[in-house]
Amino acid sequence: MKLYDGGKVPNARRVRMYLAEKGITVDTVPVDVGAKEHLSQAFLKKNPAGRVPVLELDDGTIITESVAICRYFEALHPTPALFGTTPLEQAMVVMWLRKAEFEFYLPVAYAFRHLHPAMADFEEQVSEWGEANRPRALAGMATLNARLSHVPYLAGDHFSIADIIAFITVDFLKPAKLAVPDAMTYLKDWYARVAARPSAGA
Amino acid sequence: MKLYDGGKVPNARRVRMYLAEKGITVDTVPVDVGAKEHLSQAFLKKNPAGRVPVLELDDGTIITESVAICRYFEALHPTPALFGTTPLEQAMVVMWLRKAEFEFYLPVAYAFRHLHPAMADFEEQVSEWGEANRPRALAGMATLNARLSHVPYLAGDHFSIADIIAFITVDFLKPAKLAVPDAMTYLKDWYARVAARPSAGA
Repeated sequence: MKLYDGGKVPNARRVRMYLAEKGITVDTVPVDVGAKEHLSQAFLKKNPAGRVPVLELDDGTIITESVAICRYFEALHPTPALFGTTPLEQAMVVMWLRKAEFEFYLPVAYAFRHLHPAMADFEEQVSEWGEANRPRALAGMATLNARLSHVPYLAGDHFSIADIIAFITVDFLKPAKLAVPDAMTYLKDWYARVAARPSAGA
Repeated sequence: MKLYDGGKVPNARRVRMYLAEKGITVDTVPVDVGAKEHLSQAFLKKNPAGRVPVLELDDGTIITESVAICRYFEALHPTPALFGTTPLEQAMVVMWLRKAEFEFYLPVAYAFRHLHPAMADFEEQVSEWGEANRPRALAGMATLNARLSHVPYLAGDHFSIADIIAFITVDFLKPAKLAVPDAMTYLKDWYARVAARPSAGA
């Protein structure tokens, strides 16, 4: 199989960090998003949506969507579990994965895409929508901070894919011209702990 | 356990349709979203995000997020599988669940929330964003229509949670003042087949 990777694109980094946590090595093909290689004819044949990452299996089957690619590897290599083990843990991982995506990642991504000058080339920018998402991103961080005041990781006792998504979103705050407020000490402590994991550099 | 249900809200209907497909019965507490019961003090104690549905376990544990609630029941009752069986099927379900949500449900929801007069009371409306999402909703439908030209269900051979999410989004087109174009015959045929399932009335 081959992983078409997208460098610093958050969704591409999710898969790399997940694979590093699992100790899985996959042949990787770099896709230069800055040079719009993800919008080339050759790449659009792999993924008509023009998005990275893409996993191509040996029979040519294409899996897109970062979390779907991780779920595929999770089914093949169940341990260490990054999608939970018991029914309740599995539900908590999906619940916090979704809250991290819908309440934190999406507002940050919208603020970046609709306000950053460099994105004008990729997106029909609606600046009013970008601005509306700045307070939403802060509200999302407040939700994560409150959760992390009484559990070590978003889904509870164990590190999971939900932490990977939220952690990479924190690193995405800077290009979106946002930051974790100093008062959110639980979120800051959790970030430092996750940043210390070897997978954080993947 | 108790399911706090939200009537015609799409995310509440997802869980009801899922449970009907699985043949699972759960004690249900109605939440009147029209009367803003989901924003009441009592409900915000269950889910500070003020959203339905919510599953409360007997020990008081709260699970929110429609797909997380379904995932909990899937782990408890694996058959009939609505999240796939083999690793590839599981990945395809998550891939198409996400494409149905991000490329179809979200654009439809944004068009509804940011353009419909009845939503002005619930949302700071950005009409330019609502309008920008009308063509995105159509593009999402085109993606589903193309997929359904060669497989019977979104994830492949088997009906799954991805079909539930897309089906309920089609029913959400009307309040968003959108419709499936007549030319999208594969999507229309699939809709008719899913609508004929007893769970569609749940």
